[in-house]
Amino acid sequence: MSNFKAGIIQMPVVDKIDENIDTALSMIASAAEQGADVVCLPEMFNCPYQTENFPIYAESQGGKTFKALQSAAAENHIILVGGSIPEEDKGKIYNTSYIFDENGWLIGKHRKMHLYDVNVEGGIHFMESLTLSPGNEATLFDTKLGLFGAGICYDVRFPEYTRILSISGAKVVFLPAAFNMTSGPAHWEFNFRCRAFENQVYLIGAAPARDNTAGYVSYGHSIAVSPWGEIIGQLDEKPGILIVDIDLGYVDKIRDEFPMLKHRRTDLYQINMNGKKIK
Amino acid sequence: MSNFKAGIIQMPVVDKIDENIDTALSMIASAAEQGADVVCLPEMFNCPYQTENFPIYAESQGGKTFKALQSAAAENHIILVGGSIPEEDKGKIYNTSYIFDENGWLIGKHRKMHLYDVNVEGGIHFMESLTLSPGNEATLFDTKLGLFGAGICYDVRFPEYTRILSISGAKVVFLPAAFNMTSGPAHWEFNFRCRAFENQVYLIGAAPARDNTAGYVSYGHSIAVSPWGEIIGQLDEKPGILIVDIDLGYVDKIRDEFPMLKHRRTDLYQINMNGKKIK
Repeated sequence: MSNFKAGIIQMPVVDKIDENIDTALSMIASAAEQGADVVCLPEMFNCPYQTENFPIYAESQGGKTFKALQSAAAENHIILVGGSIPEEDKGKIYNTSYIFDENGWLIGKHRKMHLYDVNVEGGIHFMESLTLSPGNEATLFDTKLGLFGAGICYDVRFPEYTRILSISGAKVVFLPAAFNMTSGPAHWEFNFRCRAFENQVYLIGAAPARDNTAGYVSYGHSIAVSPWGEIIGQLDEKPGILIVDIDLGYVDKIRDEFPMLKHRRTDLYQINMNGKKIK
Repeated sequence: MSNFKAGIIQMPVVDKIDENIDTALSMIASAAEQGADVVCLPEMFNCPYQTENFPIYAESQGGKTFKALQSAAAENHIILVGGSIPEEDKGKIYNTSYIFDENGWLIGKHRKMHLYDVNVEGGIHFMESLTLSPGNEATLFDTKLGLFGAGICYDVRFPEYTRILSISGAKVVFLPAAFNMTSGPAHWEFNFRCRAFENQVYLIGAAPARDNTAGYVSYGHSIAVSPWGEIIGQLDEKPGILIVDIDLGYVDKIRDEFPMLKHRRTDLYQINMNGKKIK
């Protein structure tokens, strides 16, 4: 199937984990009712985005948030990119996205590869690495709809990351994200548009709704960009569900008419990942 | 000197090579009078941008356009990124930018590395490779003001290219370019903003002024973007000179506050160029 619908969930995040799970489940069901075949939740959707919260909210794989997502995927018969949650594993905490197929099988798991450690004068200060460890894998997942990629938030800043996904075959990339009130207005749109266009993929960004009382204020503006770099849907800062049409045939058309992936000078430059040349 | 002015020339291009050279010389002098320390001309500023023209207008290195630029750099005491012209060398034609220092010495030469062969339904059709051959080198040039990079137009589409320049030490990248009426409105701004920000460099794009009667209609919109991804100057479609302030200290500040170049996961991925790992 080369045409399908993606549902992008922009949900409020509160300090009660069960309330966050309930919100996610309710919005997933609503997106599925609206015809979504794939649903994407935001980054850290079960935990207010603050470094000190990550160890407190962390669950090991198979915990209650994991199980709730697994059931939601199967019950709604949707592929679910489960945003991200803090994951505990062998004493370390990761910013992790679990991805389930329409039967509830885990088909992908991405741990945020680039940690967000910034200190902008008059703007955002944040040090993810105080409590988080990074993942070490680029994440692709194969579905009945096609081969897709996943990253989390800051991963999208690094052209190498999305490049590795697209060269490896992804035609749609899902990015649970939470830009803030410094980087959101400054960079969100052009970052998503450029990454989508240069890799000739659909790029989906799902963010938490804005809460001006939070320690970290999400920009919101969940977005979907076409492989031509056009914004095909974007929310404002409030809670909402964005449903967009994905046409994998259009990916092929753009790659045929404007064949940038073929025009890469791989005779001169190459990207390696974990010691292997990316084809 | 960490603060200087860049002058960006958006000039009309006609079918008479001498008239184009005269226009360029006059606008270079004007930019220098306005305080520009570095001046950048547009892509194919001496030749209407059509594949069949490139062999006709081509000069070998040291030809009259080269000599005119060399003199202009020395006479105006400016560093000159000489846009690009068709260069003939051993029976091949290249899209070539000659770069001169303030004494008229050739300090850089870039041959467009990525040739523009596209065929967009309802939009642009162009096949540079019909008459042009590509260059095989990423171009850095060292000046009294700092280490800079150069590319030409389509090179900016490929994140690998600007990445190689920035990792190699460039803090400002100059891009003679000529987007068209399909790709200009669709991609020009976000492409420049994202490349500048992700590499934390100033990015300068110089385009020909628009001529709606031309075979290839330039979008114009010559642009300068800061390392934070802000547009610090942009022209419309008409002939003009854009003068912008460049602050290399600001490059360092952005790289310190939002240290994306350091956050690259070079333990996992690397870019190679001509068989060597780029540091």
